[in-house]
Amino acid sequence: MDQFTNATVLKAANIYHGGQVTSRTLVLEDGTKVTLGIMLPGVYEFGTEGPETMEILSGHLKVLLPGTEVWQEINGKETFHVPGNSKFALEVFELTDYCCSYPVVG
Amino acid sequence: MDQFTNATVLKAANIYHGGQVTSRTLVLEDGTKVTLGIMLPGVYEFGTEGPETMEILSGHLKVLLPGTEVWQEINGKETFHVPGNSKFALEVFELTDYCCSYPVVG
Repeated sequence: MDQFTNATVLKAANIYHGGQVTSRTLVLEDGTKVTLGIMLPGVYEFGTEGPETMEILSGHLKVLLPGTEVWQEINGKETFHVPGNSKFALEVFELTDYCCSYPVVG
Repeated sequence: MDQFTNATVLKAANIYHGGQVTSRTLVLEDGTKVTLGIMLPGVYEFGTEGPETMEILSGHLKVLLPGTEVWQEINGKETFHVPGNSKFALEVFELTDYCCSYPVVG
């Protein structure tokens, strides 16, 4: 799926890590929240509330998922899942374009 | 208006100037194209095809509009219009969040 339809889009950007990570928030028809974002090179740690599905659209990075000790390298398109109430770390080598989904729970 | 509704949103980012300027494309119900973008500090020149309305949501920059010789300083929210088939220049001092609209012509 290359596009979302019937989305509500918040105009203002989400800005993290001094602008190294920025995103826009969409809410889809079924209530799913999605953020479309850009990460510039750097090392980041993020915490989750609910579970997240992270789809890398392009870029080059490593990710350390919770409960693992091995950094997973990603080159280009890749999807990974992060459990709720956890932390994950990213080392971004090249500008990375991503789509993060926060499924509606319950 | 803090959000757009019923928008079609292209998933992949638009990436310019080596990632210093990035945006997402939306198409609204009436066919208006909108890009929501981030500009990091730097000096940029952009060309227009049709007319554009540029709404600065936050940031600090100067803009040189076509046909003028005076740089206009913008601090925070401001809107300016750029004619079609022209060029304009921006000097961005601080991360700038913007919403650019490309009205449907005709």
